[in-house]
Amino acid sequence: MKNFIFTNPTKLIFGKDSIARITNFLPKDAIILLTYGGGSIMKNGIYDQVMEQLKGFKVVPFGGIEANPDIVTLKKAIELGRKEKINFILAVGGGSVIDGSKLIAIAIPSTTPAWDIVKTGKFEGAIPFGTVLTVPATGSEMNSGAVISNRETKEKFGFYGTFPLFSVMDPTYAYTLSKHQISCGIADAFMHVCEQYLTYPDQSGVMDRMSEGILLNLIDISKSQDKLAEHDYDTFCEYMLSATIALNGFLSMGTAQDWLAHMIGHEITALTGITHGASLAMVYPSVLRVMRPHKEGKILQYAKRVWGIEGDNTDEIVTKAISKTEEFFRSLGLAANMAEGKVDQSVADEIIRRMEERGHKYGEGRIASVEEVKVILKDSLSQK
Amino acid sequence: MKNFIFTNPTKLIFGKDSIARITNFLPKDAIILLTYGGGSIMKNGIYDQVMEQLKGFKVVPFGGIEANPDIVTLKKAIELGRKEKINFILAVGGGSVIDGSKLIAIAIPSTTPAWDIVKTGKFEGAIPFGTVLTVPATGSEMNSGAVISNRETKEKFGFYGTFPLFSVMDPTYAYTLSKHQISCGIADAFMHVCEQYLTYPDQSGVMDRMSEGILLNLIDISKSQDKLAEHDYDTFCEYMLSATIALNGFLSMGTAQDWLAHMIGHEITALTGITHGASLAMVYPSVLRVMRPHKEGKILQYAKRVWGIEGDNTDEIVTKAISKTEEFFRSLGLAANMAEGKVDQSVADEIIRRMEERGHKYGEGRIASVEEVKVILKDSLSQK
Repeated sequence: MKNFIFTNPTKLIFGKDSIARITNFLPKDAIILLTYGGGSIMKNGIYDQVMEQLKGFKVVPFGGIEANPDIVTLKKAIELGRKEKINFILAVGGGSVIDGSKLIAIAIPSTTPAWDIVKTGKFEGAIPFGTVLTVPATGSEMNSGAVISNRETKEKFGFYGTFPLFSVMDPTYAYTLSKHQISCGIADAFMHVCEQYLTYPDQSGVMDRMSEGILLNLIDISKSQDKLAEHDYDTFCEYMLSATIALNGFLSMGTAQDWLAHMIGHEITALTGITHGASLAMVYPSVLRVMRPHKEGKILQYAKRVWGIEGDNTDEIVTKAISKTEEFFRSLGLAANMAEGKVDQSVADEIIRRMEERGHKYGEGRIASVEEVKVILKDSLSQK
Repeated sequence: MKNFIFTNPTKLIFGKDSIARITNFLPKDAIILLTYGGGSIMKNGIYDQVMEQLKGFKVVPFGGIEANPDIVTLKKAIELGRKEKINFILAVGGGSVIDGSKLIAIAIPSTTPAWDIVKTGKFEGAIPFGTVLTVPATGSEMNSGAVISNRETKEKFGFYGTFPLFSVMDPTYAYTLSKHQISCGIADAFMHVCEQYLTYPDQSGVMDRMSEGILLNLIDISKSQDKLAEHDYDTFCEYMLSATIALNGFLSMGTAQDWLAHMIGHEITALTGITHGASLAMVYPSVLRVMRPHKEGKILQYAKRVWGIEGDNTDEIVTKAISKTEEFFRSLGLAANMAEGKVDQSVADEIIRRMEERGHKYGEGRIASVEEVKVILKDSLSQK
């Protein structure tokens, strides 16, 4: 196990009607920038429920934060927040609204331009903020990370910013998500665990066991499509809480991580607009096939403990584990490769051009060269 | 899943030589009460390593906090801390030193007498404190709980107090523990998971899977006695981190808990001085046998997922799971019942007398009556 420092100060306020507890956790003198997305919270009643609780506070609403939050939009929020002298941000939405709000919270008191904060990850402080989660997927409600897009330059970068003070997590708030949105959320959570877990063996037994537990639970959830469709409360609890734990630091204490699939997936999203979780599903099986020389030991463990694959033939076990992973994504209605996802060669060419320009290696211990990424993309594009 | 609020602000500073990072996390103007136990940290060099790092700070040492920290000892520390106007406490030791230091941190600024704080759990604030963990077992390094003894009245009570600001966890600091101490630590961690997990099914899939993961990891560790004996670093990492996660709140979000074995175990320790982990091991198999009508569904899940027991015959599976639990404790060199642990009838009589006096029910959802505790003790005392 590697040496590590772990901390996660975010308070989770979880369960049906937990919005009613929110004022216990807001500063009494809060002037609140209320950030949200495309307006679905207006239609499904969540906006009204939140505003009902915020009676007595000055609230400055800022809507329109898009999926893959754009720097141009966020700059407007930063200006508004400064003008209105807000001292608290309440992000109501999914990972995009929450990620964007992290940048807003950091940029308001900063002299550094917002896009420079994204690119350098350097900043001084942040305005406190809380979240009301409506889309379980990214884990942003309980971590400090944020991924911000720049549509003008077709770039998408992540940085570590600031933890939410609290996150209100009412699983019923996810009831109005479409099947595709839920599927992308489950795939995203599954991939967050894989990026932390599926590296090489013998790093940490305790992290491995917990990661395998979350993967098993996500597989259980994926098999409960009927319960998701009929808005079974407990199934939504499982989905929401698993997605949070998949990326809140609980699973990566003292371990090396990968994130190669995320690097490629982010580029696919930046170039095509494909939803984040879907972009990961269409890349990961190829990552496993191509990076197998580095990952074989851990794929064998994953095969046995997560998929219950038995046997002695290493080749067969690894192949079966990758097939099971593809089946899992397809069971969610997602493409398990780029060909299936109708992404074409020009996207792969542009990804390679960018990676060559940057010139470094990728993923766990920087072991994946641009040459390997080329092979991954070729593999993904040539699947039938 | 039940509604819940989760928060755990403690920072873990984990790994070999992590004591060197401690000054990054201490207030610059700290006047430190350094609390410790019976002096083993003098012999094994940990005291010197800590003091080396604290050069430049005013340090007031207070040693002699005994296993099952006694209110009389702690009152002396509270007086000393007030007199020396300390504003930070650094607890160097295991669960007893850390638990005791939580009470010291709370009692110093309080007007309520210390034993009243223990009995009522009511208090205003606390002086900040950190820990340097030397005995992985209780999880006190990353939770707010504390258990304090009163030898005069032969009482032992727990209360929720204050979280450590940080905990330095260097697994090499546990190398000088005896095999029995390590075994009690592993049993204690195992029991912490069981008390949270082994209740009834269908509460939370994600909590179940993570709990099962920690149990599996503790079983792996118990089978690595040779590695523990030869001070294998990674095995000690597993032991230390598993014990922390076993009781830091990660495993009990939204679930009902039990703690019946702990209630009985605490009484056994208060009356006989038997180490906490050992007292739990000698009670738990009887708890499972007697409380089986309430726990059968979960014991079946535990049997299958933790012990890999297959089959269709419920009776056989439950019996095997309890046998496996007994074997696990015995493999650690611990007694799996009170008869084996040479505890006699008079102890059981006194436990019953006290429980009758208090007159309430015990454990998960207060389902265990004094009558049931009688049957548990009889079962435990009559094992061959």
